[in-house]
Amino acid sequence: MSGAAFTGVIPPLVTPLDDTGEVDVGSLRRLVEWQIDAGVHGVFALGSSGEVGYLDDPRRRAVLETVRDAVAGRVPVLAGVIEMSTQRVLSQVRVAQSLGADALVATAPFYIGTSPAEIERHFRLLAEAATVPLFAYDIPIAVHTKLDPLMLVRLGSDGVLAGVKDSSGDDISFRRLVAANRDAGRPLSIFTGHEVVVDGALLIGADGVVPGLGNVDPAGYVRIFQAAADGDWPAAREEQDRLARLFEILRTAPDVSRGAGGIGAFKTALQHLGVITSARMSEPVISFDQAAAARVRQIVDQVVGPPELAR
Amino acid sequence: MSGAAFTGVIPPLVTPLDDTGEVDVGSLRRLVEWQIDAGVHGVFALGSSGEVGYLDDPRRRAVLETVRDAVAGRVPVLAGVIEMSTQRVLSQVRVAQSLGADALVATAPFYIGTSPAEIERHFRLLAEAATVPLFAYDIPIAVHTKLDPLMLVRLGSDGVLAGVKDSSGDDISFRRLVAANRDAGRPLSIFTGHEVVVDGALLIGADGVVPGLGNVDPAGYVRIFQAAADGDWPAAREEQDRLARLFEILRTAPDVSRGAGGIGAFKTALQHLGVITSARMSEPVISFDQAAAARVRQIVDQVVGPPELAR
Amino acid sequence: MSGAAFTGVIPPLVTPLDDTGEVDVGSLRRLVEWQIDAGVHGVFALGSSGEVGYLDDPRRRAVLETVRDAVAGRVPVLAGVIEMSTQRVLSQVRVAQSLGADALVATAPFYIGTSPAEIERHFRLLAEAATVPLFAYDIPIAVHTKLDPLMLVRLGSDGVLAGVKDSSGDDISFRRLVAANRDAGRPLSIFTGHEVVVDGALLIGADGVVPGLGNVDPAGYVRIFQAAADGDWPAAREEQDRLARLFEILRTAPDVSRGAGGIGAFKTALQHLGVITSARMSEPVISFDQAAAARVRQIVDQVVGPPELAR
Amino acid sequence: MSGAAFTGVIPPLVTPLDDTGEVDVGSLRRLVEWQIDAGVHGVFALGSSGEVGYLDDPRRRAVLETVRDAVAGRVPVLAGVIEMSTQRVLSQVRVAQSLGADALVATAPFYIGTSPAEIERHFRLLAEAATVPLFAYDIPIAVHTKLDPLMLVRLGSDGVLAGVKDSSGDDISFRRLVAANRDAGRPLSIFTGHEVVVDGALLIGADGVVPGLGNVDPAGYVRIFQAAADGDWPAAREEQDRLARLFEILRTAPDVSRGAGGIGAFKTALQHLGVITSARMSEPVISFDQAAAARVRQIVDQVVGPPELAR
Repeated sequence: MSGAAFTGVIPPLVTPLDDTGEVDVGSLRRLVEWQIDAGVHGVFALGSSGEVGYLDDPRRRAVLETVRDAVAGRVPVLAGVIEMSTQRVLSQVRVAQSLGADALVATAPFYIGTSPAEIERHFRLLAEAATVPLFAYDIPIAVHTKLDPLMLVRLGSDGVLAGVKDSSGDDISFRRLVAANRDAGRPLSIFTGHEVVVDGALLIGADGVVPGLGNVDPAGYVRIFQAAADGDWPAAREEQDRLARLFEILRTAPDVSRGAGGIGAFKTALQHLGVITSARMSEPVISFDQAAAARVRQIVDQVVGPPELAR
Repeated sequence: MSGAAFTGVIPPLVTPLDDTGEVDVGSLRRLVEWQIDAGVHGVFALGSSGEVGYLDDPRRRAVLETVRDAVAGRVPVLAGVIEMSTQRVLSQVRVAQSLGADALVATAPFYIGTSPAEIERHFRLLAEAATVPLFAYDIPIAVHTKLDPLMLVRLGSDGVLAGVKDSSGDDISFRRLVAANRDAGRPLSIFTGHEVVVDGALLIGADGVVPGLGNVDPAGYVRIFQAAADGDWPAAREEQDRLARLFEILRTAPDVSRGAGGIGAFKTALQHLGVITSARMSEPVISFDQAAAARVRQIVDQVVGPPELAR
Repeated sequence: MSGAAFTGVIPPLVTPLDDTGEVDVGSLRRLVEWQIDAGVHGVFALGSSGEVGYLDDPRRRAVLETVRDAVAGRVPVLAGVIEMSTQRVLSQVRVAQSLGADALVATAPFYIGTSPAEIERHFRLLAEAATVPLFAYDIPIAVHTKLDPLMLVRLGSDGVLAGVKDSSGDDISFRRLVAANRDAGRPLSIFTGHEVVVDGALLIGADGVVPGLGNVDPAGYVRIFQAAADGDWPAAREEQDRLARLFEILRTAPDVSRGAGGIGAFKTALQHLGVITSARMSEPVISFDQAAAARVRQIVDQVVGPPELAR
Repeated sequence: MSGAAFTGVIPPLVTPLDDTGEVDVGSLRRLVEWQIDAGVHGVFALGSSGEVGYLDDPRRRAVLETVRDAVAGRVPVLAGVIEMSTQRVLSQVRVAQSLGADALVATAPFYIGTSPAEIERHFRLLAEAATVPLFAYDIPIAVHTKLDPLMLVRLGSDGVLAGVKDSSGDDISFRRLVAANRDAGRPLSIFTGHEVVVDGALLIGADGVVPGLGNVDPAGYVRIFQAAADGDWPAAREEQDRLARLFEILRTAPDVSRGAGGIGAFKTALQHLGVITSARMSEPVISFDQAAAARVRQIVDQVVGPPELAR
């Protein structure tokens, strides 16, 4: 499968947990069905929304096995291989490939200091070991470096990268990435990770979206993508405006950490919709506030509709 | 061993590598002897200077086994257990304890977003699993959060933490930490990680220092510590001023990354001094510039003396 | 003139200087004609692109007088009132109003620390003194705080603000601002300051754009705006893609400061196009590199066309 | 007066305001006496603690005139000339010199982007216009750039700068500045702006301190300075520890802005001590919380003693 084959809506799946903090396999399988029923074009396991930063290796393995089995080849499965630097990412690469990931998603090194040349070398070393397409994951809020668009296109042209997931929130850089990629013959599949500006990203030439909010309303993102493909930009905008209202579930608990605030809201909404059993998060996250959870449910009811209608 | 037992000079050992990138056990054993001969009060394996962020788990294990065997109980061995968040650190804790670490050193979570309450919970959960003393490692340049001094002292009073290694570069917060710890009856052993302000840190009440530069000149740091213990502050300052000149080895390669610039300088100096065989660093670090290496050797010769005298 | 009256393309005019560093009145008048000929809907004097941070009060006054006289009422003149905090901005407000500005543009306080409540109070106090519409200028790269979208809409509903110029580069916040403003009945005119994503910004509901690059190619931005008004999104995108290529003039001198790199590129291009006489910048800017200037001219020739055609 | 003439304790005076927000000349004169009675070696008007970022030009003028007249030549008067960039600072320089300032204190440019070369040029241009000694003010929290120690020493050797006020909180850089200055023959008078680490700063070779907290307890800082001059480091530390406890007045209102939290605490303490009439701050600061003010008074009573004893 070439990089160009990746397109459309590929939500970063949350990782449902049971009461003991273990991966809730049944809920995760239901989440996969919820996504595929909605028409998504792939799923991304072990991304930031999937609590990859929290999960130890056995739990990471359980997630990827479950998703691979549940998907059963119907759509591609992307797997996050998130670790501090090259050697440690390579350990993750070996496991993810052995478990059947269709593509890998890696960040620049973090915790350590790096230079741009070292970041480039990092991706080249990963690609040497990878037997499936490799995506670069640009997420400065977690990694604290921003990937240079020209470097990404160079790595695409050299066959190192098949694509980019851009969660940088830097729309100027994103435009430049899309333009440079087009000038280079489109070696990269470019995905935005920002679920509230998908209409604009598709207008300027993104190949797809990896929307955390797509856990909750995958059908909405599929509709935006289809409207854009049809050139019906007012329809794309209208659907995006609706989903931007749904995104307010992430603002219900302003005092909790970024982790609990975002992923916790997705899980609370999915629990309310009957897709997963528990909204529990990994340690050391402080549990989601009850008032905030009630507000999440209210917003879901208003924007997605009550659970019985949403399914 | 109680927290109060930790005091003095505890250098964060670099990890010598051979030409294939594996841990150079012989060089690491010589480095340990170089340190103990100089009179250090402990050694810290798998800290940032030890390339912990770069090393995969087998290499981490090799480092800790080698250091433990080489030290052979003559001084305490602290071990870094550096990973993204609670579950993953706990995996490291289990290994480090099984290998005989005398104390553990852990950071706040990184990559993920966390709140202060979650950071506190993280350390409490680690301490529940730890059978040896636990140190908090405050290194915002890597972790991107600053540990609150009052939280640290509270965790000390509750028996969660035995000490703190402060590499925050925030001297105001450090003063506050020392003062709050003193008011609480000194539950914490407080170490500064900043090798150029040790005289001042000891004056205001630090218990010791974890100096990266102590890889190269451990005897100098032992002299500062002794001068301070004797109340001979001018002597402490004079020795620190000498070591601050040695610290200029870190400024010889301004364009390389923080990793290559700092650790690479330590390794280049130790190679020049005949302690370790190679200055090689882990992937994806771009190798240390030859002109910079020559400048490092020149500074070492000026400040420490030529290799035959330094030993 | 109500806030709703502001719409379309309102470039932030550069401030041409003569060889002694004084305002070049003739060049500034030609720049105004260049803009109005192209069909812009307003001009913004004394913005960041206008070197407002560099100019002393007499020069600021000279700029605003010249622009006001040259425009002669054909389009609205917005004036930046940029200073550290409330009292000092109020001094600027009095001058700008006395010189006939049609609207004022103010940032949050900078240099001092402020809280959100203090920023809100700051804008309320400015509005009490203002006799013309007041715009909030959201430019975190200069001010180091980000304006809260909900606060901005609240200030719009309360009649404090007539609009917002968003140069934050935070497209998620921008979407939220547009949505909250629409829900509140559109009290604010919302402009994006990002010249490379105007198609997307207009798609999601921006009222206009304040493009620094519009100094060089105002007609291009007018075409985007018209295409968007006509619902011809492919045409808007195509024109924006062309202007994104022109934006590469800002990347010709990567080692100079943000000031020299951006404003210097605009001035160099305008000099090349024959609109202004000199590309000189204010002290202490180091002058634009000759090789970089040649590259700017080359890009302008490729994207805008040679000077004789561009006029 | 050469740069070397500046030494000792030079507090950055707060600016007392009356109920209408104008400069309270009587209180400011009493504050000057309070300082000189305590034995300070100079005073610094219009620094950050003096609300310079808030005051318009007439109020800045009133402050400097009042301080100059009250001091009446007994100690040197340093004056802040704080503005966005070169031209605007030069306007402030002309006024401050005409009002009799004995030395000027300027930051790097802010709001605009600058390069290191431009910052150096900025100080050189200021010095060309200055007829009294010029100090560089290194305050990254306000200016968002850090001054390079080697540049500062170079400017000292070239006769551009007479000294540095370091409020960077970067003790590593401070050590390097002191060492480089010593190697260059001490062209600079080096002051730390950090009131809780003065003992350590003096130990490593600082020439003095500009302590905001010195508004409240100038005699304490004079005692530290004297103890250090006598080589009695335990006494210096003990006094600093006492003042660090007093510094807790800055932590009584954690939710207010940096401005209100710090300067407001100084003013509240000075009002309690009977030195100034009102703790009012400039717009747009939200007034200091009553509970926090009570806590400030309590700390002052504990550490400085009740007002009747403190005078």
